[in-house]
Amino acid sequence: MSYAVEPWQLRWQGLSVDHLHQTESTFALANGHIGFRGTLDEGEPRGLPGTYLNGFHEEHQLSYGESGYGYPEAGQTIVNVTDGKIIRLLVEDEPLDMRYGNAIEHERMLDFRSGTLRRRTLWESPTGRRVIVRSERLVSFTQRAVAAIRYEVEPLDDVQLVVQSDLLANEPTVSRSNDPRVAAALDSPLVNDFTMAEKTRAVLCHHTKVSGLRMAAAMDHEIDIEGGVDVRTEIRAEADLARYTAAVDVAKGSCLKLTKYLAYGWSGQRSTPALRAQVEAALAGACQTGWDGLLKEQRDFLDDFWEVADIEIEGDDELQQAIRFALFHILQAGARGESRAIPGKGLTGPGYDGHAFWDTEMFVLPVLTYTLPDAARDALRWRHATLDKARDRAKVLGLKGAAFPWRSINGAECSAYWPAGTAAFHVSGDVAFATQQYLNATNDEAFERDEATEILVETARLWTSLGHHDQHDGFRIDGVTGPDEYSAIVDNNVYTNLIAQQNLRSAANAAERNPSVLNVSADEIAAWRRAADAMAIPYDEMLQVHPQADNFTKHAEWDFENTPEEKYPLLLHFPYFDLYRRQVVKQADLVLAMHVRGDVFTADQKARNFAYYEARTVRDSSLSAGTQAVLAAEVGHLGLAFDYLVEAAYTDLHDLHDNVNNGLHMASLAGAWMALVAGFGGMRDHGGELTFAPRLPDALTRFSFRMAFRGTRIAIDVCETEATYRIVDGTELTTRHHGEPITITAGSPVTVPIPKAPELERPKSPFGREPRRH
Amino acid sequence: MSYAVEPWQLRWQGLSVDHLHQTESTFALANGHIGFRGTLDEGEPRGLPGTYLNGFHEEHQLSYGESGYGYPEAGQTIVNVTDGKIIRLLVEDEPLDMRYGNAIEHERMLDFRSGTLRRRTLWESPTGRRVIVRSERLVSFTQRAVAAIRYEVEPLDDVQLVVQSDLLANEPTVSRSNDPRVAAALDSPLVNDFTMAEKTRAVLCHHTKVSGLRMAAAMDHEIDIEGGVDVRTEIRAEADLARYTAAVDVAKGSCLKLTKYLAYGWSGQRSTPALRAQVEAALAGACQTGWDGLLKEQRDFLDDFWEVADIEIEGDDELQQAIRFALFHILQAGARGESRAIPGKGLTGPGYDGHAFWDTEMFVLPVLTYTLPDAARDALRWRHATLDKARDRAKVLGLKGAAFPWRSINGAECSAYWPAGTAAFHVSGDVAFATQQYLNATNDEAFERDEATEILVETARLWTSLGHHDQHDGFRIDGVTGPDEYSAIVDNNVYTNLIAQQNLRSAANAAERNPSVLNVSADEIAAWRRAADAMAIPYDEMLQVHPQADNFTKHAEWDFENTPEEKYPLLLHFPYFDLYRRQVVKQADLVLAMHVRGDVFTADQKARNFAYYEARTVRDSSLSAGTQAVLAAEVGHLGLAFDYLVEAAYTDLHDLHDNVNNGLHMASLAGAWMALVAGFGGMRDHGGELTFAPRLPDALTRFSFRMAFRGTRIAIDVCETEATYRIVDGTELTTRHHGEPITITAGSPVTVPIPKAPELERPKSPFGREPRRH
Repeated sequence: MSYAVEPWQLRWQGLSVDHLHQTESTFALANGHIGFRGTLDEGEPRGLPGTYLNGFHEEHQLSYGESGYGYPEAGQTIVNVTDGKIIRLLVEDEPLDMRYGNAIEHERMLDFRSGTLRRRTLWESPTGRRVIVRSERLVSFTQRAVAAIRYEVEPLDDVQLVVQSDLLANEPTVSRSNDPRVAAALDSPLVNDFTMAEKTRAVLCHHTKVSGLRMAAAMDHEIDIEGGVDVRTEIRAEADLARYTAAVDVAKGSCLKLTKYLAYGWSGQRSTPALRAQVEAALAGACQTGWDGLLKEQRDFLDDFWEVADIEIEGDDELQQAIRFALFHILQAGARGESRAIPGKGLTGPGYDGHAFWDTEMFVLPVLTYTLPDAARDALRWRHATLDKARDRAKVLGLKGAAFPWRSINGAECSAYWPAGTAAFHVSGDVAFATQQYLNATNDEAFERDEATEILVETARLWTSLGHHDQHDGFRIDGVTGPDEYSAIVDNNVYTNLIAQQNLRSAANAAERNPSVLNVSADEIAAWRRAADAMAIPYDEMLQVHPQADNFTKHAEWDFENTPEEKYPLLLHFPYFDLYRRQVVKQADLVLAMHVRGDVFTADQKARNFAYYEARTVRDSSLSAGTQAVLAAEVGHLGLAFDYLVEAAYTDLHDLHDNVNNGLHMASLAGAWMALVAGFGGMRDHGGELTFAPRLPDALTRFSFRMAFRGTRIAIDVCETEATYRIVDGTELTTRHHGEPITITAGSPVTVPIPKAPELERPKSPFGREPRRH
Repeated sequence: MSYAVEPWQLRWQGLSVDHLHQTESTFALANGHIGFRGTLDEGEPRGLPGTYLNGFHEEHQLSYGESGYGYPEAGQTIVNVTDGKIIRLLVEDEPLDMRYGNAIEHERMLDFRSGTLRRRTLWESPTGRRVIVRSERLVSFTQRAVAAIRYEVEPLDDVQLVVQSDLLANEPTVSRSNDPRVAAALDSPLVNDFTMAEKTRAVLCHHTKVSGLRMAAAMDHEIDIEGGVDVRTEIRAEADLARYTAAVDVAKGSCLKLTKYLAYGWSGQRSTPALRAQVEAALAGACQTGWDGLLKEQRDFLDDFWEVADIEIEGDDELQQAIRFALFHILQAGARGESRAIPGKGLTGPGYDGHAFWDTEMFVLPVLTYTLPDAARDALRWRHATLDKARDRAKVLGLKGAAFPWRSINGAECSAYWPAGTAAFHVSGDVAFATQQYLNATNDEAFERDEATEILVETARLWTSLGHHDQHDGFRIDGVTGPDEYSAIVDNNVYTNLIAQQNLRSAANAAERNPSVLNVSADEIAAWRRAADAMAIPYDEMLQVHPQADNFTKHAEWDFENTPEEKYPLLLHFPYFDLYRRQVVKQADLVLAMHVRGDVFTADQKARNFAYYEARTVRDSSLSAGTQAVLAAEVGHLGLAFDYLVEAAYTDLHDLHDNVNNGLHMASLAGAWMALVAGFGGMRDHGGELTFAPRLPDALTRFSFRMAFRGTRIAIDVCETEATYRIVDGTELTTRHHGEPITITAGSPVTVPIPKAPELERPKSPFGREPRRH
């Protein structure tokens, strides 16, 4: 059982109940505001039902065997909201349930160009009646609060059909938590506030018990029964259920068509009547646009996206599909978030409790910055909107400026393990990094003035209060945790220090350009530059490599030869203390520093460091492969880079971490883009200068990628010996190709030769941790 | 309100209900097996009731907001067992309650020579009847399972008296935990199994709900009513209460004397009938010995103890009292533990959940080793008895040998915060240190063969699996936490490495002497010696001091000037990450290393290191002052040393940490002994050689101390210019006095001059953290 390999869609044939958990994630639809897991229309069988509204969460108490000052007290968990996806069918007196009767034909496909999930089923009921069911579902990119479903039933016999279309709140689910308090908080989390049903339309309003957030869901219907007689419809609503029912006799060969329009809204501020009005308005708009109109808007939106973002691969059709799958889901996660976070799983599942992490800034936002920059800006606006919480957190921690949370839905820290949460201060530098990257890529002066400068200044203040000038080594940042979660509470993590260095300089520049923002003094700016210039970067002279943090290269080695595969991921089988004290790396850390701050490493250092960390990085995190691909490609290990590109791209489609049931790995999907564009494309943007150094891996015959920079859309076509740079939309772009300046103008593509890659020995991965393909 | 200053007892006059919490701790009686808090006979008013059986505990689940591999799942908490201390009195129809009527006279005194708590009260009831109540309570050092109370009432009017003597299980208490699960576990923890009452005797048997431990308590009575008429007695028992009642008319000037004998026992193995038999047998023994017999045995036991352990102070009467108070309570904590732990609070209160920590080995056991060595051996036998749990723990952690728990009652790790628990591996080295120290001080070959060698070998195995030989620095021990809890997860903590070094060498020597134990190979022994010889000891060449661990001296300084007093202890007001990354020390760490491994530091290093850490040590732990006194005295800061001696000695009597209500600080009491004996006495035992370097602080005119070494009891008398060494019991002792060898023989004291102390500038304490006197 697996997906058909097709360039523009993901298709699964057959039912395969055991895979529903996974395919519900890969077939998820979302627009950054509403998320629908790819459940069957009839609701069951199912893996995990899932309907999400970005940011809508419940709170629960965090408990500690031994508590400590500054430990967060409230956890947040994404809530499975009122499910509007459900359309049930009764064929004569038999409910359509794929587990019973006979699913003669069944396929589902996610179409990356139409932006819809289609399903076609030929089902024979236990008593032998046959129907063809076709459905198409969309979550609208253009009408943010709207989703819609077209549901068609074509009987192959004369039958009575009963169609039930539901809004269902508090769906029973199996608890995913070992903590009884968390499980209790998420068992029937919604409390009904309002219920309405009239003709074809119904509205349910609820709120959560502890967080007190309010939401509304509404549905309306159009029914068209070609050849139907004796149609009888009704609508009713209770506290947790609204149901539209149509019963009709349909002749063989005729067709019942139901169109269901859905609207969702939530707020922590607005009243229930206001929310009701909001969803009814959205619903009216959707009905006015109509099903065909929604489909057309969706396709136009996607046509535009693919014009700026598409990647073409020649020589590996499965990879081609995987890359478009990745781009499509990143788009779905971020397109219409609008000042909400982009969670680690997007809106595809309940994994990580629906929290957003630093990888949104360091992995997902680069993709959006260069393809859909407004979405990147909106995600950064979420950070800006949480600045007060980040300032409060910094204050609690005895620091200045803003300390962004390790994991959160609403901006408040939810990490209950501080060595890998609070101590990972790089998250604030990552936010600043993404902010500066977006500014460089867009010249968005309004955002710089209104939001970006404040972010940069407040994060810079964090670093000067967190680090100190020391007579031994310069400006040290001690006791923090870098990206690698198999180390913690270390001194001078190189990644953190380099991110902080850039943060301090970005803030100094932004504050000088925007003197009215926050009244930053010249002394403060000078202090930032002094700290940046004095930043301690440890180096191991004996081994001629950068330790990922002070002392790292002196630590004991991990015994990879005696670590069997079933002991991975290591953190489930070994205590933190054992991981922390050894040279075992969960995910690219120094290697990530060499990507995002590649400007401060020499080519020799990159090659030596890469080989050193390659032998010690186990990739227990899905964040790693993409970054390793980027650096492998840069130092010349094209075969290895390709293997990591494939691993990143297949993480979810092949369920490499055995947890896609909880949702897709957005950062890994972004890592596939990164591997292609920054790896084989060699795209870098150090200091705001866009440069390329493309190279074709042996496994491919050609690839091309697209992106936008300061409003200009370009395409770069790469084959073995040469690369062609072309303006897709815009007038001119100046960049570099393998270090040489080139200027491309509209209508005049530039083709340049690609220097031959060096012949290098492939560096060793840890025993048993070679790149995974399946 | 405070204690009267008297050399051999602690006396408190007046009631002072607000101080009951504290005086219940200071007036606690215990023998290492049974502990009685110093509650009033009549049970109320009270601070915390408390009756403890060493090791008898309940379990509860430990919860984690984010769990991790190897986290302990079960917590343990000491249980307030069946209370046999209660004797209530009705005077005519008024219950004796010190909050009502008029307490005309009231005093309590803890007598360090009789080993009893006496009370004398002249009380006038609200209706004007007066009685004198006298009671004396003991927990027997000689009959381990036995306690007894003599209770006398002398009316000053003709009155009817009713005396009720109880065994009360599941006393209601106020929950001390924020965790509802812990509170629930300790609310009525005992389940009744058996009840018996007959004539003057009653027995109650219970078990705990989760840990399933069984216990029995029994009481018997003798009543003697001089001048009483119409005596009517009864006894009855219910599930949680047994009560002996005597009602009698007593004439003015006559006296009612009630003697109550109590016996306690518990077991995880033995049945309820067996436990009942055990306590009835103990009770029979006690009754046969009788009250006067118990008193005499108690005094004889203490006479012997003071002969070997007494410290005399001239020039500071309050300090004299405090030192004897300290010795008396250490004796009570350890005398009859017999293969149970000595908890951090002894058996004086529920603080730290009744857990034992490493400070038992490093602070309390040295006192016992040199005064009551069998008690030290018994405490080490507890560690030996828990070796299987320590081996299991090491295995879970991926280590070899034995990893003793950070905190525990039964030997299983109960620490829910691993950076300050599991990572504090020095605890295993501390057990080895105390084991070797006991062996050196006793030449106990049977213990070496049967228990000590196994402890030493298994802890040595821990170190060779925990550390590694590194090409940069030698044998490194990374990612551990030393004694200072304001640092954690550090590399090469000097204290840990030096304790490990001694552990490895002790194990090598013991394994060679006892080749049949555990079949240690010559290769393994050689590996231990290699690791010990190559042990990394970081040194800061720029500052010319030892960093307490790698990088410590490069960390940011704490801003003491801007830390007001109410922000101490720091851990309640600042996050761990902020403490960990700075040069702020909770408690002696490197300074403790310079005490216990003083053999590897030069005098200059000691002086420089002491000054360096003195300026950065805030003593938020009661463990610190004693050790700082020892090193201050050694490097010549006698005034500072005296101040720290006083702080250690007054920790509980002046409630310096504002928590004596939860129990006494055994390690701080031991620290006072250490400050005197190892500080001003200069006693050291490096490598098993006993040496002295006495010096008199200006504040005293003379002091003397006693101890036992290899069966010989000695006394050392110190005045300003000379010291006299004397054999108290035994034949001969060879030692050193300020480096010069001397030999003392029985009957021939040796008097030697004391070299003048250098004139030194007093080193700076952190701002606001000067030694505390009150």
